[in-house]
Amino acid sequence: MSVNIDPATTVSDPRWATGPDGAQTAVSIGDLTLDSGVGLADVTVTFQKWGTPNAARDNVVLALHALTGNSHVTGPSDDRSPMAGWWDGLVGPGLAVDTDEWCVIAPNAIGSCFGSTGPGSIAPDGTPWGSRFPRLTVRDLVHAEARAFDALGIGRFAAVTGGSMGGARALEWALTYPDRVGAALVLAVGARASADQIGTQTTQIEAIKADRDWQGGDYYGTGRSPATGMGIARRIAHLSYRWDRELDDRFGNRPQGDEEPLIDGRYAVASYLEHQADKLMRRFDPGSYVVLSDVLSNHDVGRGRGGVTAALRACPVPTVVGGIDSDRLYPLYQQEELARDLGNCVGGLHVVHSDSGHDGFLTEFEQVHDLLAETMRLAREHRPTR
Amino acid sequence: MSVNIDPATTVSDPRWATGPDGAQTAVSIGDLTLDSGVGLADVTVTFQKWGTPNAARDNVVLALHALTGNSHVTGPSDDRSPMAGWWDGLVGPGLAVDTDEWCVIAPNAIGSCFGSTGPGSIAPDGTPWGSRFPRLTVRDLVHAEARAFDALGIGRFAAVTGGSMGGARALEWALTYPDRVGAALVLAVGARASADQIGTQTTQIEAIKADRDWQGGDYYGTGRSPATGMGIARRIAHLSYRWDRELDDRFGNRPQGDEEPLIDGRYAVASYLEHQADKLMRRFDPGSYVVLSDVLSNHDVGRGRGGVTAALRACPVPTVVGGIDSDRLYPLYQQEELARDLGNCVGGLHVVHSDSGHDGFLTEFEQVHDLLAETMRLAREHRPTR
Repeated sequence: MSVNIDPATTVSDPRWATGPDGAQTAVSIGDLTLDSGVGLADVTVTFQKWGTPNAARDNVVLALHALTGNSHVTGPSDDRSPMAGWWDGLVGPGLAVDTDEWCVIAPNAIGSCFGSTGPGSIAPDGTPWGSRFPRLTVRDLVHAEARAFDALGIGRFAAVTGGSMGGARALEWALTYPDRVGAALVLAVGARASADQIGTQTTQIEAIKADRDWQGGDYYGTGRSPATGMGIARRIAHLSYRWDRELDDRFGNRPQGDEEPLIDGRYAVASYLEHQADKLMRRFDPGSYVVLSDVLSNHDVGRGRGGVTAALRACPVPTVVGGIDSDRLYPLYQQEELARDLGNCVGGLHVVHSDSGHDGFLTEFEQVHDLLAETMRLAREHRPTR
Repeated sequence: MSVNIDPATTVSDPRWATGPDGAQTAVSIGDLTLDSGVGLADVTVTFQKWGTPNAARDNVVLALHALTGNSHVTGPSDDRSPMAGWWDGLVGPGLAVDTDEWCVIAPNAIGSCFGSTGPGSIAPDGTPWGSRFPRLTVRDLVHAEARAFDALGIGRFAAVTGGSMGGARALEWALTYPDRVGAALVLAVGARASADQIGTQTTQIEAIKADRDWQGGDYYGTGRSPATGMGIARRIAHLSYRWDRELDDRFGNRPQGDEEPLIDGRYAVASYLEHQADKLMRRFDPGSYVVLSDVLSNHDVGRGRGGVTAALRACPVPTVVGGIDSDRLYPLYQQEELARDLGNCVGGLHVVHSDSGHDGFLTEFEQVHDLLAETMRLAREHRPTR
């Protein structure tokens, strides 16, 4: 299914555009100078697409995944994507993002482990990047994607959309390339990482690095991986993704099955977190977890733009801002700031009501449907006249 | 300073009562049958005291410490207590708990590492308990203390007071021995552990046990200790102890000094958490951290008493309930439940206003002063007539 396109010939290569729904493409963009000034050599960006770009290539919508997500926006799980699509039922023919009208493209973030260049990728010297992989920022992810789409001849996106890290990516797209973005949906994120977010992310990174199998980041090919450390990181993260009262309604202080917590047994919620950790170990690379957690800590739309408020005010892109009322990781006041200060926030802050906490950006189907539909309405309204 | 009292002679031994302020006493209570049915052999309970018990021994107030606290309620740091007292300025002559009137006793919780029997103590076979140390409950801590005070001839306490784990201990004192408690102050805790609390505590325990130096819990005397794992646990805990907005006001996303987070530097909040972790490593035992974190997960006043509501309603002890409005670990709704359901809650829920989150039970001096003063007023009012 994967179509590898020679960057020298991409613009004229039609294969990526005509592939079936879910087709994956890899685009080599060469060397990338990062936000830090450091260079990253020989970068690849992969993406999947649904629908077909029109002749003007102005019907393309970016769907941007979160930390441990990938480009599998919709469709059943398969060998490549052990999860079902993260916006299943929202992207497709006749759905909120109607792929009869729009072409949805979901790039895998660089730093990740699903095709785009990350710490587990092979560096130009033929060995995995490992500890040599540099720190990235959200802006670096966006720059890499822009370069890939330049090569494909997509100058402008009808809309950029995402939640959590995907929301940070969508926001940086709108601020970095306002002329290339028709509308944006920014969900469950803030304008910059807060101390609390940096605190939890750096703690998770410490947990992974404390695992002896981390081996300084150079565990690739050794047969050992810091899965235990990432399991602890995931437990920390997963608690931050859920609402405390919903967790208590579901699990309370009940034991797991017949186990006896006063002797040697587990509580149900501990078993649940263990299950979340085990699931992530099977599908995600600890090195990418470290890199992308750090990306979230480095998120700051105000850096180099005169601060957060000035950066937000300068953005002309019509933007839908959504926040979840039970979100403990990206609390509602962060989206209130976005809605207040963005230069062209449409409709003020949209509050998503949910018992699921931060995860509401994935679970609250109907409300996310409405936010996507509103975003696509703006995209249609702001489509350039031809 | 430590007075070791032979349990066979304690009742008639006056030395513990006449020692200077801060004097420490160790009481052997023999074997203890735990809440789980398991036996714990040869248990010692240590305590410090301020003021002097009167002839009737009815002027004694219990000050109960939190998870990593100890019996050093007040006074400057010294070799035994690297921290200043946790209620400094609140306990002493003429203070909220006036030691000219009251005798304040602070027992070190069993399971801890400051004198009372814990996993680092020597078992009857002459080697450290380590992995053989059983799981405990708050009720076990209280039973052990009651046995120790039986031996000292203290039948009744004018008041029992504490916050966080100390609040859980005070609550269990009031519910387990209502006839022995004149008044109670229960601060910043709930009636039972919530799923969220169990989730964070079990995650912290996993982080310690994942440290190879844990050695299954039998690291005592090996020259290696799971300090790294406890450092990760402390980072997780410390974030839960503070309010996210206060952390952001203090640290934002600023780098630590001249470090460069986009290259290889740290953020200020990460450095702060590292400092918290380092401090704890120097003063606390990881084995005790595991045992007492588990104690917090096992906290449930309703166990064996027909459930939480029935247990609370049956308690006749005049109780002051306080909660902190920015507490993310023991949110205010848990204290609202206590205030609503306790059989004799005095004055409803006292809301402590603080930017410090859960740590407000230590930092909000004036408000905690008022709660202690109110508790001592109740203690005076409910003192048995002689």
